[in-house]
Amino acid sequence: MEFNKITGRILSAIKAIVGDDFVITDHADLEKYSHDETEDLIYYPEVAVKPKSPEEISALMKLCNEHQVPATIRGAGTGLSGGALPVMGGLLISMERFDHILDIDEENLQATVEPGVITEVFMDTVAEKGLLYPVDPASKGSCFIGGNVSHGSGGPRVVKYGTIREYILNLEVVLPDGDIIWTGANTLKYASGYNLTQLMIGSEGTLGIITKIVTKLIPRPAQDALLLASFETAESACAAVSAIFRAGIVPSALEFMERKGLEWVIKYDGINFDLKDGIEAFLLIEVDGTNMDVVFNDCEKINTVLEQFDCKDVLFADTSAQKEELWRLRRTMAVSVRSNSVFKEEDTVVPRAKLPQLFKGIKEIGSRYNFESVCFGHAGDGNLHVNILKGTMSDDDWHNKLKDGIREIFELTVSLGGTLSGEHGIGLVQKEFMPIKYSDVHFELWRGIKKVFDPNGILNPGKIF
Amino acid sequence: MEFNKITGRILSAIKAIVGDDFVITDHADLEKYSHDETEDLIYYPEVAVKPKSPEEISALMKLCNEHQVPATIRGAGTGLSGGALPVMGGLLISMERFDHILDIDEENLQATVEPGVITEVFMDTVAEKGLLYPVDPASKGSCFIGGNVSHGSGGPRVVKYGTIREYILNLEVVLPDGDIIWTGANTLKYASGYNLTQLMIGSEGTLGIITKIVTKLIPRPAQDALLLASFETAESACAAVSAIFRAGIVPSALEFMERKGLEWVIKYDGINFDLKDGIEAFLLIEVDGTNMDVVFNDCEKINTVLEQFDCKDVLFADTSAQKEELWRLRRTMAVSVRSNSVFKEEDTVVPRAKLPQLFKGIKEIGSRYNFESVCFGHAGDGNLHVNILKGTMSDDDWHNKLKDGIREIFELTVSLGGTLSGEHGIGLVQKEFMPIKYSDVHFELWRGIKKVFDPNGILNPGKIF
Repeated sequence: MEFNKITGRILSAIKAIVGDDFVITDHADLEKYSHDETEDLIYYPEVAVKPKSPEEISALMKLCNEHQVPATIRGAGTGLSGGALPVMGGLLISMERFDHILDIDEENLQATVEPGVITEVFMDTVAEKGLLYPVDPASKGSCFIGGNVSHGSGGPRVVKYGTIREYILNLEVVLPDGDIIWTGANTLKYASGYNLTQLMIGSEGTLGIITKIVTKLIPRPAQDALLLASFETAESACAAVSAIFRAGIVPSALEFMERKGLEWVIKYDGINFDLKDGIEAFLLIEVDGTNMDVVFNDCEKINTVLEQFDCKDVLFADTSAQKEELWRLRRTMAVSVRSNSVFKEEDTVVPRAKLPQLFKGIKEIGSRYNFESVCFGHAGDGNLHVNILKGTMSDDDWHNKLKDGIREIFELTVSLGGTLSGEHGIGLVQKEFMPIKYSDVHFELWRGIKKVFDPNGILNPGKIF
Repeated sequence: MEFNKITGRILSAIKAIVGDDFVITDHADLEKYSHDETEDLIYYPEVAVKPKSPEEISALMKLCNEHQVPATIRGAGTGLSGGALPVMGGLLISMERFDHILDIDEENLQATVEPGVITEVFMDTVAEKGLLYPVDPASKGSCFIGGNVSHGSGGPRVVKYGTIREYILNLEVVLPDGDIIWTGANTLKYASGYNLTQLMIGSEGTLGIITKIVTKLIPRPAQDALLLASFETAESACAAVSAIFRAGIVPSALEFMERKGLEWVIKYDGINFDLKDGIEAFLLIEVDGTNMDVVFNDCEKINTVLEQFDCKDVLFADTSAQKEELWRLRRTMAVSVRSNSVFKEEDTVVPRAKLPQLFKGIKEIGSRYNFESVCFGHAGDGNLHVNILKGTMSDDDWHNKLKDGIREIFELTVSLGGTLSGEHGIGLVQKEFMPIKYSDVHFELWRGIKKVFDPNGILNPGKIF
């Protein structure tokens, strides 16, 4: 695909659309828009804009189409696959001014929000009304809900409450040619026409620009309990995961953390935690419900299961502060690793009973390629995030040889019935590994769909495939 | 789109693919394949086949493409929108021999089934292992799971357990050109490439032929309770629906039935039920869980809510037999109406708090157009099935004037924030009403997607748009 540069004339037109104050051309000011949280990748856009309305975005897209200028949409820039990186330069459209919760409809248990609302802000706002929006990625304190939709984000509570696909009812979208549509209806389900809402979810900003989001909300469970279980081996921790479900319990979160991850957060984030010798892995298990007796009863059943898997110790969080502290262990883990090491984060997902094999295999691949890894993730969904650390690896190995190791990780994932990326998306950095799982037939269908929405290929080029 | 007839030469090729025993050409034998449960519509295929493998279907599709012969896929023929009717003649592909449950993976809580498995057979089989597949349309005793996927079917338990979209993890699909793919992975979620699994769900057999289905399963709740609440007005019954959720309860079913529906089942199905004077509508409310005390407690809370909405009587089902009898009232209603009247069934869905306005409006439209209607449905999802009865309407009014009344129903539905079809699909009979909700932009996207999958337009032509 050939693209054009943004000329002075095009820039004037951009300024006329969004207003001078919301157009950024200065290199220093563009720095913020040149990276997300994906490794150390840097791509500068030529121009960044901060539009405020679907109509402004529509006008921008018409302009980009007319001049064959690439356009990349950016949420909060917390992505881990490079989806928001303007790899072909061109125009970067930041959604940061789309930051309003437009409506919380308590009668229908629905909300309408703009995509630039921070996920946690939205969750807290509905929580004040006794409602739950359960899609809470680890980055919930900084990520935008629009980015969550675009990447099909998950978070710990998918395991009980279902994926983001269950909570996104309808989307207002600006299509690449400037048309503005609602993808569906504000209803809990519908069966009329190919489901464009579902097609937009996880399309990583390549099919259209989401400008409004209608979500489903549910009553907020009043009670919860949190357990941290310690295991001598990561395999037994992983094996316990399936057994918990098999015992008839659906926890509201079931997170896996390996010892090394806790070592990082203790070292770098000053979290106080007594990490006993001989413990290799942890499960953080949350149960929620309307009745505390039932919640306790579920905890007891879980305890019984854990005992069968050589669980060494179960820490029961008694207070809100203790719960908060345990969750902080898990939530800061990725940031802690990212902030203190050269790293690559790979996202794998397998049927949940395959987790022990996946974990063991990753470590074995690491020992052959000489990389360290820190693994954690949503074990209840079979979703393991693999943080690969450069450590003592040579620059040459890191930039060249490591790729083969990552390929082996994904080959293993696929051989176990899984796929690349449970929730981070493919973006820029995982796309070369897509053929491990998907055939030319898939790529042809995807490219065909892309072409239907974006015939000139101007929207977020260079991503997914 | 121009199509060709099935010539003797093509027929020989078909027989060579599936075997003579599974090719039907006799007019009398084709009758079975000429209708589904949609009104009184009859369309004969030229030839019907009963293939057994994806490879046979692949060969059939290549043949149809080569000769530009239309092909229509048929499940159990329980559809209510005409999706399985071979309106252009050609080849009808019946999935009845794809009737095996291939695997129930108790470790991962997944199952792999062929599309011709009867939904209830599948549900019962997993129930024996303590597991729940909660997608149970009223026709579960006869419909195929493949048809459920193709139509995005729902059923009473969507309200608590989520839509079919949450339970279908992966699909083996024969594409119109004969390629066979798996759409995704056997994982609870994934974010790699446009989600072809979700695109197939609800595509009504127009994009590909589903040959294997991987479903999610969940632990089966051990306890449940069932209430039947009677109301003097349908509006107060509908209004109570939202209030139940607002009280923090998520019932496992929340069904609306109007009096007339019960009169039909009492009259035609011999169900014994004391229908008191002055009662206009009913809610059938199921609560489930792991603990009977909590279930009872939820029932009490529901009772308190119901009292605020002028509920006249609450019948509590004490035994399995009583529960079965109450469910039979609801499940046989559609069949009862269909078997004993000339009818049209329209499927509407709105945000749930709009149900009272929808119901009132439908009755008002009926009084203007002189049609009787029987309404029932999944009130918890805002999904109302409207059975329009011919009654004393003249043939001319039935065939001509009624259409305007149906149009008004859908216009009302859309004006209330809803859409056509919550779960029955658009198929043949609703497609003319699609422009009430959807614009040319939607149609262009849909047609574009269709063309990517089926460039010659041979698969289930004449449906959806």
